[in-house]
Amino acid sequence: MVSAPANEHYFLGIDGGGSKCRASLAEAEGCVLGSALAGPANPLHGLEQTLHSIESAACRALEDAGLPPSALARLVVGAGLAGVNLPSLYKAIRDWPHPFASLYLTTDLRVACLGAHQRDDGAVIVTGTGSCGYVRTDGTDLLVGGHGFPCGDQGSGAWMGLEAIKAVLLASDALGPPTALTESLAEQLQARGVAIVERMAGRASSEYAKLAPLVFSAAESGDSVALRIVEDGASYISEMARKLLAYGPVALALIGGMAERLTPWLASDIAAQLTPPKGPPEEGALLFARQQHALV
Amino acid sequence: MVSAPANEHYFLGIDGGGSKCRASLAEAEGCVLGSALAGPANPLHGLEQTLHSIESAACRALEDAGLPPSALARLVVGAGLAGVNLPSLYKAIRDWPHPFASLYLTTDLRVACLGAHQRDDGAVIVTGTGSCGYVRTDGTDLLVGGHGFPCGDQGSGAWMGLEAIKAVLLASDALGPPTALTESLAEQLQARGVAIVERMAGRASSEYAKLAPLVFSAAESGDSVALRIVEDGASYISEMARKLLAYGPVALALIGGMAERLTPWLASDIAAQLTPPKGPPEEGALLFARQQHALV
Repeated sequence: MVSAPANEHYFLGIDGGGSKCRASLAEAEGCVLGSALAGPANPLHGLEQTLHSIESAACRALEDAGLPPSALARLVVGAGLAGVNLPSLYKAIRDWPHPFASLYLTTDLRVACLGAHQRDDGAVIVTGTGSCGYVRTDGTDLLVGGHGFPCGDQGSGAWMGLEAIKAVLLASDALGPPTALTESLAEQLQARGVAIVERMAGRASSEYAKLAPLVFSAAESGDSVALRIVEDGASYISEMARKLLAYGPVALALIGGMAERLTPWLASDIAAQLTPPKGPPEEGALLFARQQHALV
Repeated sequence: MVSAPANEHYFLGIDGGGSKCRASLAEAEGCVLGSALAGPANPLHGLEQTLHSIESAACRALEDAGLPPSALARLVVGAGLAGVNLPSLYKAIRDWPHPFASLYLTTDLRVACLGAHQRDDGAVIVTGTGSCGYVRTDGTDLLVGGHGFPCGDQGSGAWMGLEAIKAVLLASDALGPPTALTESLAEQLQARGVAIVERMAGRASSEYAKLAPLVFSAAESGDSVALRIVEDGASYISEMARKLLAYGPVALALIGGMAERLTPWLASDIAAQLTPPKGPPEEGALLFARQQHALV
């Protein structure tokens, strides 16, 4: 076996999101060498944190692969980040004096789609901390939703958590119907009424998203307030799917932390058209790094 | 005329809110000497800013009255602040090494009620940047709502602004009905679609509240999306009023920057029971300072 030349590149795929970022490291030939997890990488919620998370994930992936930190300079990085559809954030990250050989930047949606379908077209809906839809056909792509917390992202974990808190606070004033969410939120947050506000003040959307499983559980037990939240969220995701399918993508996948529990609540004709994802977003980010590097 | 002794107290009333704080300065005998305006004083959105705004308002009120800065130490201050119903914030402000002779602290709602009715009972609903209800009967008081942005404060300016942005973003994806708010928000924010998100990211609730007049205008022109927002907000405020009136207060006043435009949208039986406020909240804060000082 001939050892790789010292100037050979490695490829690193980064999938950044509001709660965490995942990295996957591979050789030029394609063999995956290591993977890693780091902190939040949604530049809309903190640019410094995002850059720090990307660099941490890269260092940890090198360590996982048994490679020295000096190999950072040999990484061809493909990063899919939430929020870079905003021009100012895209530019801010492009201007970062990163420690890599090169950094190719795109949205978390594009790498999710690449990972899910293992090809450069198709459609995905990501429902995790946030929600967003993406479709790519004939080299043209379209984003739907993804407006973030608290202005958009209906059907996402953070949106469900916020709706649950709103409902519990209304119930605490007897200005809204009673709900089983009052007890389940009290247990998880160790707070009731106005203390919930204090507990959540200034918290990131990922903290709100931690409440989403309680909303599903209450809805599954028939709580009418929780049912209304889950049904409203699912209805938004179904309409988003309908809009994406109208572009005629080769396939549509529903991915992210909320996908499994949300699927049974979608319109049945939509649920029937979903394709299971072939690979995770960080695999899509690796494909993106290779693809962009080949174009140079 | 005998000049006041050097150690005589002056009284200062402070009404703090999410957008600004107002101060009113008076002699021991009751004559108002000066007034002032300073920055935001909602400790939930920034403790340092709040303390800074209170001190600025006090200094400016002294200047307005032609008194020297050294008179700060002769001020008996009554401050009504949003957010101090939260125990941790109440304590944080109580622990402040303030420059005054004394500082008596209560909620913005209590001073609003004192100012509106010129007596220590009654009820008020404040609808400005936020919304909150308050009733005081027989020395017992009750707060309703006031859970802040974005978890509560239905019917407030910030809530209306957020709902308007949500509706415009849904319309921009054709996942919600078209609305005249798209054009009016575009003109005021100089932004459309995803650029609105970028424009508003991390902004204070007072920035969202600046959009509320556009929602009223669109509703008054018959825009169905704006109508739904104004009607939902007014319905919440009507229900809050109904709850406060059930405690049998001597009077109920609707005050704050949204009061005038919101009143025609309230349930007619509720609108008929509203009493015009006799004085502003900072006058209530002055009364509170005198009242508490007399108890010492």
